[in-house]
Amino acid sequence: MNFQLPYLPERSEKPRESGLTMVMDKGLSLRQVEDLIESSGHLIDLVKLGFGTSYVTPNLKEKITLYHQNNIRCYLGGTLFEAFIVRGMFDDYRKLLDDYGLSTAEVSDGAIALPMEDKCNYIRQLAEQVTVLSEVGSKMEDTVFTPSEWVKMMNTELEAGSWKVIAEARESGKLGIYDSAGQANTGLIQTIMSEVPTDKVLWEAPVKPQQVWFINLLGSSVNLGNIAPHDVIPLETLRLGLRGDTFFSFLPEALAQMKP
Amino acid sequence: MNFQLPYLPERSEKPRESGLTMVMDKGLSLRQVEDLIESSGHLIDLVKLGFGTSYVTPNLKEKITLYHQNNIRCYLGGTLFEAFIVRGMFDDYRKLLDDYGLSTAEVSDGAIALPMEDKCNYIRQLAEQVTVLSEVGSKMEDTVFTPSEWVKMMNTELEAGSWKVIAEARESGKLGIYDSAGQANTGLIQTIMSEVPTDKVLWEAPVKPQQVWFINLLGSSVNLGNIAPHDVIPLETLRLGLRGDTFFSFLPEALAQMKP
Amino acid sequence: MNFQLPYLPERSEKPRESGLTMVMDKGLSLRQVEDLIESSGHLIDLVKLGFGTSYVTPNLKEKITLYHQNNIRCYLGGTLFEAFIVRGMFDDYRKLLDDYGLSTAEVSDGAIALPMEDKCNYIRQLAEQVTVLSEVGSKMEDTVFTPSEWVKMMNTELEAGSWKVIAEARESGKLGIYDSAGQANTGLIQTIMSEVPTDKVLWEAPVKPQQVWFINLLGSSVNLGNIAPHDVIPLETLRLGLRGDTFFSFLPEALAQMKP
Repeated sequence: MNFQLPYLPERSEKPRESGLTMVMDKGLSLRQVEDLIESSGHLIDLVKLGFGTSYVTPNLKEKITLYHQNNIRCYLGGTLFEAFIVRGMFDDYRKLLDDYGLSTAEVSDGAIALPMEDKCNYIRQLAEQVTVLSEVGSKMEDTVFTPSEWVKMMNTELEAGSWKVIAEARESGKLGIYDSAGQANTGLIQTIMSEVPTDKVLWEAPVKPQQVWFINLLGSSVNLGNIAPHDVIPLETLRLGLRGDTFFSFLPEALAQMKP
Repeated sequence: MNFQLPYLPERSEKPRESGLTMVMDKGLSLRQVEDLIESSGHLIDLVKLGFGTSYVTPNLKEKITLYHQNNIRCYLGGTLFEAFIVRGMFDDYRKLLDDYGLSTAEVSDGAIALPMEDKCNYIRQLAEQVTVLSEVGSKMEDTVFTPSEWVKMMNTELEAGSWKVIAEARESGKLGIYDSAGQANTGLIQTIMSEVPTDKVLWEAPVKPQQVWFINLLGSSVNLGNIAPHDVIPLETLRLGLRGDTFFSFLPEALAQMKP
Repeated sequence: MNFQLPYLPERSEKPRESGLTMVMDKGLSLRQVEDLIESSGHLIDLVKLGFGTSYVTPNLKEKITLYHQNNIRCYLGGTLFEAFIVRGMFDDYRKLLDDYGLSTAEVSDGAIALPMEDKCNYIRQLAEQVTVLSEVGSKMEDTVFTPSEWVKMMNTELEAGSWKVIAEARESGKLGIYDSAGQANTGLIQTIMSEVPTDKVLWEAPVKPQQVWFINLLGSSVNLGNIAPHDVIPLETLRLGLRGDTFFSFLPEALAQMKP
């Protein structure tokens, strides 16, 4: 922070267990990664190299090193994991993680159909090697889970070894925990919150109205993901009540007399 | 300009009183600021460090210096001013401006309710210290002003010492001078133009259709704000008639025979 | 590619005749061009300096040189060509191409009305000097061509000397080959594909659903244009089936048993 301002919600420091911000890197150059770190590195806990972009981007090893040097967990997108699984190449995937010095991995079934037992086996095996995030919720429009199915999947995957479970929103923010108009599915989210430990869930919230919605519902320390690189600082201002949308969310009653 | 092309509308040079372009910086790194200045610095008059981002971004002093060295007025977003006011810290805010060597400031009441008299007092006091921009129009969806209220607020604030008044559009461009669909409120804008000096109003126009609308209505020298960094050059081509949307807007009749 | 993964669709290497990716540069700084080249230069065949941005951007010569040094064809937007034509300055335009060492040019009639004969004359003359791309389809909402008119225009312009014809989508992706909702005009595109050589058409597809649509219809090696700089790598993952939207598009039947 550059100056003193009282009555701001407290923010934890990295490394932390809640209040996480996960950023989606869809192919930044090394210098763009440096820029991101200069402006926002202190605010970023995790970076996902989105879907299969890590297959295509040059200087992959240098990029991963840059993130690691700045205490940012870096991992390959779940779609890449699935690309290895659909080809029967799980062992190659494990070796890939080692080759690139990765200490975090995502297990997902957004594009492929994966029996729960198989998914948990992958989580269990990977958890011996790295820290595992697993993603719940389908990318396909015609697969709809009930709230109790969401809860069961999340808790089962946490028991299998996931550090956090990710509530899928797809990059566009129009599926999974959101409906086709991008509105948050309130009933679903409230059920999840009552049955799964709060700090164990990371919500994908790529667009601002969703970030506002989660911060106003669950507070500054909610875990949010799929944040665009240029939105990390704006998101932090939302968490701190320094943007119009959350301006009065964290102020004490005594200071609310100017509320319109 | 890189080559000669006749029949382009004349553009004033910095520093200027009309034809202003105000850019919203939501957390650029220092190198990204250098990039912006290299490509577009000659076209940018003002940079707003959006809402409370200046609290969060590192290297704030260096960033402000970079802008100043390139003859760009740099100022803190109005929401930060309001964050100080709601905490009863106006004197701290004045000191903050001094500490960072700022010579421009914004007074707004987008998030808080501020009696007109108080707002004008803040304008008056700050105008002794720096150049003041004041923002008119509410961020809240349920506050609607009549055109004559807009005019009265603008003229009162100009009399109190504002250099320019900003017509609020919120960052998304869907409130204030625009309706919920992002369409310009024609009647409102025409009333304002007939009652307030043209070059005293800076219109927030974050998205292209709005920029096109204002340029076609008020000409190349309209003051426009909340422009994204990567849109400065595209906006300049709109002002010059070098983009499809304004291609024939400034050509003499004699050259309009190819108009479809 | 950073690691081995079987069953990916084959991709041609630069310089190539199909599978082209054309990027729209709307005013990048030199360093941003370097960043783009570092991350994505191996995937970019053409860069268009969009509409009249080349009039406004500094360091134009250096920018063009940077692209050329990396085997990327660089050319001025069609709207700039039209700005010269409407002013009766075709000879100045030819000289401009020489002055800047350009070896590619676009001929279009998106903003102006240009008789087919005149357009083909421009193509013919420019083709003696540089490689020509010509754009088909109107920017104006009230000009609608039938599929057979599209086919005739494309074949006539190819005969006149165009290396490729560009199917206009406007930057927003809501006109030309798309309807006002941004949906692809299937009947039109199928007619074109049956009457014009596939690798001679470059489709403007600025937004992801359009890129997915073309890749699923015409394969990985479809020519796509008006791609934003930060979308080049995501587009390549779509071409390779390494993103959800095209995950099963190129996999052999034997590997499709996990398809949901």
